[in-house]
Amino acid sequence: MLNFTVGPVQSSEAVHAIGARDVPYFRTAEFSEVMLENERLMLKFACAPEGSRAVFITGSGTASMEAVVMNLLTLDDNALVVNGGSFGARFCKICEVHGIPHDEVGLGTGKALKREDLINAEQRRCGEGYTAFLVNKHETSTGVHYDMRLISEYCKEHGLLLIVDNISSFLCDEFDMAALGADVMITGSQKALACPPGVSIIVLSPKALERVMSNDPKSLYFDLKDALKNQERGQTPFTPAVGTLLQINARLKEIDAAGGVASEVAKAGSMAEYFRAKIVDLPLEIVSESLSNAVTPLHPTNGMSAYDIFLKLKDEHGIWICPNGGDVKDKIFRVGHMGNLSLADYDKLIMALKEVLQ
Amino acid sequence: MLNFTVGPVQSSEAVHAIGARDVPYFRTAEFSEVMLENERLMLKFACAPEGSRAVFITGSGTASMEAVVMNLLTLDDNALVVNGGSFGARFCKICEVHGIPHDEVGLGTGKALKREDLINAEQRRCGEGYTAFLVNKHETSTGVHYDMRLISEYCKEHGLLLIVDNISSFLCDEFDMAALGADVMITGSQKALACPPGVSIIVLSPKALERVMSNDPKSLYFDLKDALKNQERGQTPFTPAVGTLLQINARLKEIDAAGGVASEVAKAGSMAEYFRAKIVDLPLEIVSESLSNAVTPLHPTNGMSAYDIFLKLKDEHGIWICPNGGDVKDKIFRVGHMGNLSLADYDKLIMALKEVLQ
Repeated sequence: MLNFTVGPVQSSEAVHAIGARDVPYFRTAEFSEVMLENERLMLKFACAPEGSRAVFITGSGTASMEAVVMNLLTLDDNALVVNGGSFGARFCKICEVHGIPHDEVGLGTGKALKREDLINAEQRRCGEGYTAFLVNKHETSTGVHYDMRLISEYCKEHGLLLIVDNISSFLCDEFDMAALGADVMITGSQKALACPPGVSIIVLSPKALERVMSNDPKSLYFDLKDALKNQERGQTPFTPAVGTLLQINARLKEIDAAGGVASEVAKAGSMAEYFRAKIVDLPLEIVSESLSNAVTPLHPTNGMSAYDIFLKLKDEHGIWICPNGGDVKDKIFRVGHMGNLSLADYDKLIMALKEVLQ
Repeated sequence: MLNFTVGPVQSSEAVHAIGARDVPYFRTAEFSEVMLENERLMLKFACAPEGSRAVFITGSGTASMEAVVMNLLTLDDNALVVNGGSFGARFCKICEVHGIPHDEVGLGTGKALKREDLINAEQRRCGEGYTAFLVNKHETSTGVHYDMRLISEYCKEHGLLLIVDNISSFLCDEFDMAALGADVMITGSQKALACPPGVSIIVLSPKALERVMSNDPKSLYFDLKDALKNQERGQTPFTPAVGTLLQINARLKEIDAAGGVASEVAKAGSMAEYFRAKIVDLPLEIVSESLSNAVTPLHPTNGMSAYDIFLKLKDEHGIWICPNGGDVKDKIFRVGHMGNLSLADYDKLIMALKEVLQ
């Protein structure tokens, strides 16, 4: 099967080789070294400000989204959450579950975030200010990539804690935590890191760390103070997904050796550009006002169901694209540009798409 | 390296082969089939009563221990927790974090649980009864295997909800959820299931399911109602550790084809027996009053530090045994009997032990 989804994606040979072997015992100096290197490289690739830390959570990206809300926000906060799709809705839901006061900036499917959206939210609030800003930098469900410069300026202006779910955009689009003044970045193992799913990563700025240290979340598994303390010596409080963490290590070193984040972003960008240029004559409409390099969200204009296209590509062509759920199940499918893919792979996809769309 | 720890352990060829391949996309009928089969086989192997369900949590065993407490117990409960080591202490800590009223039956290192321990706890309570019983069937940290018949009788007598952490004993020692009247069984991917760590499994009896349905835990990631609803169609609310779940599937089918749980238990039993018989002349003392087939906890009687023995075996012999932490770091090490090991492997370990202990 050829995999053009947004995770799990195709992995490199180095990642496969680790998966083929037994998982080693991990309460050792050897594994601690790996984890300290993982933290160091994650901080580097996130352009995290001096004094930042990273922790590795065995769990999906949602686990880290929830851990961040639980460890950084309290009932005294007022969070502004960008909600442009199912991942924005998830941040809102997490705030709701934990009783964190929040407003949402609701955006229609495919819509970019504009300064007026933020000003409108502020005006609805009538004076009382926000304390934190939560955003999925790339709303993966609809393929909308938010303007981080706009968000960063707004947060700096108002002194807001900036929490960024960068799960599907990390290594696909530029992200400079220090320059943006972002306090938290979350990502996952199975997106452009191109490892198996099961690990998510939280990068915390000094300001975020201060919040973690002064909070007392009702959770053992998601106690970031405990995770941070253990990670000081390259360990975790509980048995982590050791195999995936070793694969992440191999992959981070691979990226570092091949030119770092810039060359990863360029690769995703060139795959996205190549694919988008080649489908201009197909009955497909790009439905996002602001694209990430990570994914191209498409609406079939010939009346076909997007989900049927997903099924036909899977069953008749051995190709996975990414279907959508809910309201847009029949309207939108997505083609990812992450993982171990080549332009020749896109040629195969385009040929198959042509056949299916006829 | 030869791995005699209690997880991660050595895996079978079928498990390695899956690890060597790309992880497939999972929002498909194909992956749903795998997950439904996983649930069916887990229920079978746990001897779960009719109407039970199983869910798969991407997270360590502790994640599932916490999810169970959060979803099944409330402030109206009075839980009795057996605390004979660090995993018993963990159940207590989880109850504490979530404000669940609980008493503990504290046991000294290596001590078996006796009926009088339960009666003493009851008397301390002066009348007001317990509602739930939490136990790590095998206290992995010290290698003590509790008498489940005793516990089962006590729980049946008093009508207690019985929650069993069977993480390290599952497939190593007998366990019949229906016969014992247990309501919850928890296990993990990296023990005798012999897959990479990162997934834990919760089996819930009809009575446990009723509790889950009537509770409203403050958690999105650990919302078992949501996990159960998704698992009805073989899916999960969030991206799971797809690769590990496929490996679990291969392994469950492997076990089923090779004679089921009984033959796994017999295999662990014969490895444990072989090893224990061969070390009688070594300066090592077995420090548990009640042994599991899963592990042999040993105290060096020649004055050597248990932790130094771990280091020497690792660095000079390419062998991992399981060190202990905390108070007993220098006093106890453990030798596991799970995973893809042969009697010849134990011969190598014993030879190395002889050398190190001299």
